[in-house]
Amino acid sequence: MPTSPATYLLHLECAECRAIHPADQEQHLCGCGGVLLARYDLARLASDFPRERLAARPWQSGLWRYAELLPLADPANRVSLGEGMTPLLPLDWLGTELGITVWLKDEGLNPTGAFKARGAAVGVSRAKELGAKTIALPTAGNAGAAWAAYGARAGIPVIVAMPKDAPPLTQREAQLYGARLHLVNGLISDAGAWIAAGVREHGWYDASTFKEPYRLEGKKTLGLEIAEQLDWQAPDVILYPTGGGVGLLGLWKAFEELRALGWLAADRPAPRLVVVQASGCAPVVRAWESGATQTAFWEGAATIAAGLRVPGPLAGGLMLRALRETNGTALAVEDDAIRRAIGELARAGCWVCPEGAALLPALRQLRAAGWVRTGERVVLLNTGAGLVYPDVEPLA
Amino acid sequence: MPTSPATYLLHLECAECRAIHPADQEQHLCGCGGVLLARYDLARLASDFPRERLAARPWQSGLWRYAELLPLADPANRVSLGEGMTPLLPLDWLGTELGITVWLKDEGLNPTGAFKARGAAVGVSRAKELGAKTIALPTAGNAGAAWAAYGARAGIPVIVAMPKDAPPLTQREAQLYGARLHLVNGLISDAGAWIAAGVREHGWYDASTFKEPYRLEGKKTLGLEIAEQLDWQAPDVILYPTGGGVGLLGLWKAFEELRALGWLAADRPAPRLVVVQASGCAPVVRAWESGATQTAFWEGAATIAAGLRVPGPLAGGLMLRALRETNGTALAVEDDAIRRAIGELARAGCWVCPEGAALLPALRQLRAAGWVRTGERVVLLNTGAGLVYPDVEPLA
Repeated sequence: MPTSPATYLLHLECAECRAIHPADQEQHLCGCGGVLLARYDLARLASDFPRERLAARPWQSGLWRYAELLPLADPANRVSLGEGMTPLLPLDWLGTELGITVWLKDEGLNPTGAFKARGAAVGVSRAKELGAKTIALPTAGNAGAAWAAYGARAGIPVIVAMPKDAPPLTQREAQLYGARLHLVNGLISDAGAWIAAGVREHGWYDASTFKEPYRLEGKKTLGLEIAEQLDWQAPDVILYPTGGGVGLLGLWKAFEELRALGWLAADRPAPRLVVVQASGCAPVVRAWESGATQTAFWEGAATIAAGLRVPGPLAGGLMLRALRETNGTALAVEDDAIRRAIGELARAGCWVCPEGAALLPALRQLRAAGWVRTGERVVLLNTGAGLVYPDVEPLA
Repeated sequence: MPTSPATYLLHLECAECRAIHPADQEQHLCGCGGVLLARYDLARLASDFPRERLAARPWQSGLWRYAELLPLADPANRVSLGEGMTPLLPLDWLGTELGITVWLKDEGLNPTGAFKARGAAVGVSRAKELGAKTIALPTAGNAGAAWAAYGARAGIPVIVAMPKDAPPLTQREAQLYGARLHLVNGLISDAGAWIAAGVREHGWYDASTFKEPYRLEGKKTLGLEIAEQLDWQAPDVILYPTGGGVGLLGLWKAFEELRALGWLAADRPAPRLVVVQASGCAPVVRAWESGATQTAFWEGAATIAAGLRVPGPLAGGLMLRALRETNGTALAVEDDAIRRAIGELARAGCWVCPEGAALLPALRQLRAAGWVRTGERVVLLNTGAGLVYPDVEPLA
């Protein structure tokens, strides 16, 4: 094992037009408007690096154990608060009820209490490596806290724009970490417009969802970890509470890369991915049900699950592609079902965020419909701790 | 490596009168009133188990990687929410300022956002193994949430008593997890009296601090982890925010056992332990300064750091002994210094709980006095996430 694992990053590829862009300079969207995806020399990695070597890596490195599949050229640029390596908790009571095997991937055990830390850790590290002076992003909630924290750790100023009615705690957190907070009358889409103007005017480093390619790489480690935790036997199904969709595409990309590397057990192909949204803001579900290949803006978005309140996700089309390619599906649940699920999961020892709680009624629905079959192995991806949303009241 | 690592637990020993008690049945205090300490067959373990074997253990097992040094006889009794394996973050900015090396052991990345999860995981697991029907404990704050969560995960009812003015979030959390919450007009000592009455009357399993021997074993993993993270080179100094003192004695016991096993580097002896308390409730500091061998009850205890509001810790005498034996010390800091430290650490990327924040002014004080010397290696043990105390306002 080399002491400083080096990246196998080759270049960036547009997800739409397939144009190739160099990765050694700041990059955002492709000229065609498409999202850029980091591409690695997987053939060389497969021949250089037997999967078993990972097991010998110290647990202290967190998600950086997958350094070959991350974009950072120099480990000295790592900005870390101990992100990743979160537990995969068996939910035996639920498995017994449904005749399946269920795990909860508990992302609440991350810095800032949410999976956003993964994207922020890799995103801020790479921004630092590329010389970013000021990082700016809009957020529906807890991404702002995560990027503010990692920016503070890196010593890079962060500007966060969020809706006035984003959870008060996430507003307070961004400020505690020393970020400049801008509140907009509106939704994350309006916050995004404000950031875009500042990027044009002041040359801020645009860290908006999918407008830089590396947040996705951080989220990808979710899939790498799940695979390693299940001894490289991919689960049959992963349910993901979907707002901007970075985690969903991260999972998709992770299992694609693992397959290309030949690291996955042959009889356990990639998981079917499931988009779970709130019925008050379900643009991906609506598009999926109508067979569309793009999402349409969702008017009047409203849900207690702040992270799901993303009415016009930039990568809607890509998410639909990920669902098609993995034989996945999409469904929405009511806020009341979310509130009930928070209470039910807490009484089983897991106080999850509303977004994560949405997965419980969704799984029951999929199982009742026979879409999840007897004996299947299912992962619920809980994106954050209940602590992050103390104001959301569960229903009995 | 055996697939199911077995405990090397021998028996329980009274910390005061050295009486030996069998460990295969429920035990609380010694007849003499002394605290019982779990004793292991360290000689046999040292000869059976080379330290290097640990490195090969999968990271997924969390603190259970140290199973030989934990009390559980049957791994099937593990009650886990993914506790332990928290990061040790270098604080280079602070090290540079003070001419030393500093790490923050960030226990906020635990289930329920605090180090209490370690004690609750091992304590509840062992209570389950010993057949406990109902677990009861008093708490100054977040231990209640942790034991409620692990009780819920184990399916064992939990009764928590806490002061009426304990942080509202910790009250709410205990209830969310389905625990029965009893509020008392008074302090944790009054809550303890209420629990003691219930234990006598109803036969509850008494999980009060130090009234069962296994919470301490869970906290002991703090020291095991720090040692492993520093490649078995013990730090020179560990600062610990001290309420009931389980973590302090856990660190002491961990380094004692590691030394007995011969696992520590010979030129890095055990760390000097430092008790940090709030000036509004500092019974250990007062006793230490007066040279006493027991603590006296602290009247009128008041501090924003709820976890430090323990006016009459049961193990006060033992804590003083740990300080003497490790050449440690004790000091108190003002609440305003704590509030300022919360802000300062957050602006460096770490939003810690008030208890953890107290360590920053304490370290500066020790360094200014020359007690911490140039070039020394120091660990600040942050016991929980800032998220757990959202109501505490930092000072600019």
